[in-house]
Amino acid sequence: MVPFCVYLQRDGFNQNPLFECLVAQVPEGSQSKEGFTIVGYALYFDIYSTWKGRSMYLEDFYVMPEFRGFGIGKSLLSTVGKVAKEKQCARLQLRVLDGNTPSRDFYAARGAQDLTVNEGWHMIRFDGPDLERLAKETH
Amino acid sequence: MVPFCVYLQRDGFNQNPLFECLVAQVPEGSQSKEGFTIVGYALYFDIYSTWKGRSMYLEDFYVMPEFRGFGIGKSLLSTVGKVAKEKQCARLQLRVLDGNTPSRDFYAARGAQDLTVNEGWHMIRFDGPDLERLAKETH
Repeated sequence: MVPFCVYLQRDGFNQNPLFECLVAQVPEGSQSKEGFTIVGYALYFDIYSTWKGRSMYLEDFYVMPEFRGFGIGKSLLSTVGKVAKEKQCARLQLRVLDGNTPSRDFYAARGAQDLTVNEGWHMIRFDGPDLERLAKETH
Repeated sequence: MVPFCVYLQRDGFNQNPLFECLVAQVPEGSQSKEGFTIVGYALYFDIYSTWKGRSMYLEDFYVMPEFRGFGIGKSLLSTVGKVAKEKQCARLQLRVLDGNTPSRDFYAARGAQDLTVNEGWHMIRFDGPDLERLAKETH
């Protein structure tokens, strides 16, 4: 079994990376009991809208629980927004779970629209075996 | 005002295209009254999952109304699936409107999961002015 980080390294750290990532780092004096200095991250990549052009998707967004409440998430998110503007992205998209009220409020407070509530969009996914079957339907 | 197709040409037809597109073409004898021979298309691009790796997103998927019911959509979708497998994508994702029952049934019949219904995922989007404001929050 290949460790997970090998894939991340292969896919994100090459000439044509499939994603980019921002990390939140604290000075050594503020590190966690376990010695972490990277305490949060935001991982994103380019997507495209035929209506609006280049856009950005925030795939992963995380701050370690013991470092929440200090504005690290706010800072990471607004930096992602800044990178998106610099890359001339028209939109920043992401997803959130229905029951995750703190996150839903967090995004809404910053002006994000909930396209599932407002417009009725559903996320659909073909996973491994379904995708395999779909691909075999071609003739 | 720059015509729309100029942006599509710039963004999709270069060394690092932001999307790829499959088109469904009919022979000249089967063209529509207006003379169209391209009667459907599927536009997609790479996305990334930190759990599953490279994946694919089907952004636009369309068949002209007068050419529906002949299996063109099925054929386009399964070809997108085939391309996804060839590119070693783990997943194929897309979105559909709540009220679009024919499309929801079409995907479900092929094994796709509705992540909004099954897991409660909402699609969230920061648009132009909100993204602008978000980017300015950095300090």
